Amino acid sequence: MQQKPLFVRHAGQLVTLKGSSSSPLRKQTMNELKIIEDGSVWLEDGVIQKVGTDEELIRLYQSRLQEATVIDATGKLVTPGLVDPHTHLVYAGSRENEFGMRLQGATYMEIMNAGGGIHATTTATQQADSQQLFAESKRRLDQFLQYGVTTVEAKSGYGLSLEHEIKQLEVAQQLNEKHDVDVVSTFMGAHAVPVPYKENPEKYVDEVIHEMIPEVARRGLAEFNDVFCERGVFTPEQSRRILEAGLQYGLHPKIHADEIEPYGGAELAASVGCVSADHLLRASEQGIEAMADRGVVGVLLPGTAFFLMAEMASGRKMIDAGVPVALSTDCNPGSSPTVSLPLIMNLGCLKLGMTPAEVLAAVTINAAHAIRRGHVIGSIEEGKAADLIIFDVPNYKSLVYYYGINHVHTVIKRGKVLIQDKKRSESIG
Amino acid sequence: MQQKPLFVRHAGQLVTLKGSSSSPLRKQTMNELKIIEDGSVWLEDGVIQKVGTDEELIRLYQSRLQEATVIDATGKLVTPGLVDPHTHLVYAGSRENEFGMRLQGATYMEIMNAGGGIHATTTATQQADSQQLFAESKRRLDQFLQYGVTTVEAKSGYGLSLEHEIKQLEVAQQLNEKHDVDVVSTFMGAHAVPVPYKENPEKYVDEVIHEMIPEVARRGLAEFNDVFCERGVFTPEQSRRILEAGLQYGLHPKIHADEIEPYGGAELAASVGCVSADHLLRASEQGIEAMADRGVVGVLLPGTAFFLMAEMASGRKMIDAGVPVALSTDCNPGSSPTVSLPLIMNLGCLKLGMTPAEVLAAVTINAAHAIRRGHVIGSIEEGKAADLIIFDVPNYKSLVYYYGINHVHTVIKRGKVLIQDKKRSESIG
Ligand SMILES: [Zn+2]
Ligand SMILES: [Zn+2]
Repeated sequence: MQQKPLFVRHAGQLVTLKGSSSSPLRKQTMNELKIIEDGSVWLEDGVIQKVGTDEELIRLYQSRLQEATVIDATGKLVTPGLVDPHTHLVYAGSRENEFGMRLQGATYMEIMNAGGGIHATTTATQQADSQQLFAESKRRLDQFLQYGVTTVEAKSGYGLSLEHEIKQLEVAQQLNEKHDVDVVSTFMGAHAVPVPYKENPEKYVDEVIHEMIPEVARRGLAEFNDVFCERGVFTPEQSRRILEAGLQYGLHPKIHADEIEPYGGAELAASVGCVSADHLLRASEQGIEAMADRGVVGVLLPGTAFFLMAEMASGRKMIDAGVPVALSTDCNPGSSPTVSLPLIMNLGCLKLGMTPAEVLAAVTINAAHAIRRGHVIGSIEEGKAADLIIFDVPNYKSLVYYYGINHVHTVIKRGKVLIQDKKRSESIG
Repeated sequence: MQQKPLFVRHAGQLVTLKGSSSSPLRKQTMNELKIIEDGSVWLEDGVIQKVGTDEELIRLYQSRLQEATVIDATGKLVTPGLVDPHTHLVYAGSRENEFGMRLQGATYMEIMNAGGGIHATTTATQQADSQQLFAESKRRLDQFLQYGVTTVEAKSGYGLSLEHEIKQLEVAQQLNEKHDVDVVSTFMGAHAVPVPYKENPEKYVDEVIHEMIPEVARRGLAEFNDVFCERGVFTPEQSRRILEAGLQYGLHPKIHADEIEPYGGAELAASVGCVSADHLLRASEQGIEAMADRGVVGVLLPGTAFFLMAEMASGRKMIDAGVPVALSTDCNPGSSPTVSLPLIMNLGCLKLGMTPAEVLAAVTINAAHAIRRGHVIGSIEEGKAADLIIFDVPNYKSLVYYYGINHVHTVIKRGKVLIQDKKRSESIG
């Protein structure tokens, strides 16, 4: 069915983030938002056709006004659809019972070593069939949409065997096909060493490299290959082997780096040429410099540090060093059970030393670049996907200033209005 | 028009907080929630008629089932309507432009001394007419409802003259009458020393005592009388005079105490017999003990510390010392621009050392006691107001575990369904 064109008019502030499709924003450019006042956008065929002031657009489209659905954004903020470049979306089960233990001071590693943590989720995910996994993950994707997120990356890594990793990735693929939110898949067999391999992690690394990666690639189930590089999980050497193996199969490398201690993860990311290095709480200065030189996107996850009551990464330092910084929820059942990218923006300002402009760039165009989508999403430019959010605030500063509040008013995905004034308009197709 | 009875059935967890109407919960009792599984509630004439398991209730109401509107809460959490006992709801203007200055390290006091801060809001509020003030504040009240808050306390204190304090309180009164959310009014003429009185604060204190308090009381515009007791604002001696003057006119005392330094605020609260002492980041041990002895509710505002990037109060220490603790947003345009009491609950766990059970008690029954409403709201008991929230989570632990997310599914106020599945059903009456 042919869709009517959508004409979004009179935005109080239309933040386009224009001119950054070829490479992510860095340093001062992150802080210099392109803003159109009384801005309008013409959307048609799922694509942004024209962006400008309302005066400019009405001149161009006067004759076609009748055929369009007009959305009045007077006094409101319009931004690109938000992009979450790091989630563990697809899993089964719930771990709220761990919360008491954590609040009494147990560390994430202690809970994990006590048989809880990731292993609990792995067991639940292995036991779940695809249908259950789909249903539980779809619910989270619905929630992401409520918070203005129109594209999410999703990692496997709770299967930890060929069969169950494939199952997780197939569910992510189904979600991408059936849900309005776009889901970008990352293979992360190297998320943890499975319990049976505890005494022989090398054996598991070999399976990841020789069995899982080839099969995942053969089936076209992932674009990225990620590894949890941390003491007690995978060493930098193992991580390098895994990421290089993925590269041979066309999987672009990503890395969970330097979350708990400086472990050479940022350096490795630069050396391997990772698209992004994520967490980075303890990244060394040399590692950060190397990332800046190589153009590795730094994906910061302040929600995780907030929820684990840990130190934060220094977003300020990384931006000043020239790293293109993105932000993400790290949505997962243990260390960051949230879908609220807007709250992550609040934390970016309050905890990472970033400005309101920088955090907005970090969840749009830079997040898009962190998943190699900078050319199709993340900014409001002609030819890009018609993913737009209308927020019920007059300007981008208010978006982060009025903290902890979901300001989403309207969600437009590929030119379709999915949510309007907090009410879902259409459901899974 | 006669309303149909509402029959809420099959709650996965019905958290009643029963048995605490006469005094707030303290120590271990805060952590021992009364929970009914497969719980149901019969609401009629705006009042809770019966609470129990579904089996018990269906036996009683079988014959009247046809006349009721049934709400199925299977798999969901049902709690009392949330209560926010400390807000500065009624004001005009917006201060998101201060955010940049603050993020660069300016303190609240520095911004205030530079002519920003509270004085900016005071000017905007003085200049606004009642209609504008009503409209801007109503918008916030609508948002509170979206987050499950069915009763808010609201302070004056941006008028800072008889005329404008009265105007602010009249708007609060109108909101209480016209909006579904109940608004409980507090006079806070002693919120700041107005700029023209800077050299002679005693003169302003005299005006508060001899002109404002008598007139506010005469007009029946407030139940409480609050004062900002802090170095550079009002001294403990001035605060005592103001609170005692209010008592003479039947205004119950409250106090902003020990936010920035230990200043004897907690001690004063106990000595005067305040209903609550609020902030308390720097309260002394003796002050906390005195509050526990006297039964003064400690209203903690972790959102303010979060937003000001300051140290937090120790909720854990206060609860252990026997202080009945409540939580609040402190909703105001400068130091805590939020309405999200659920996020405050997250902060209660992650930043104040409280358990999920304690934070739930702190935003329901203890918050009700902080505004002398413990006998009518704050728990799900027969005879109390029919204010209920249905959250889209299976249990109260998940409510705080899945952080930063608005889990509100249904809001029932005085037996009327106001929001269902995030969609507002009825508007201001
Ligand atoms: Zn992760
Ligand atoms: Zn206050």
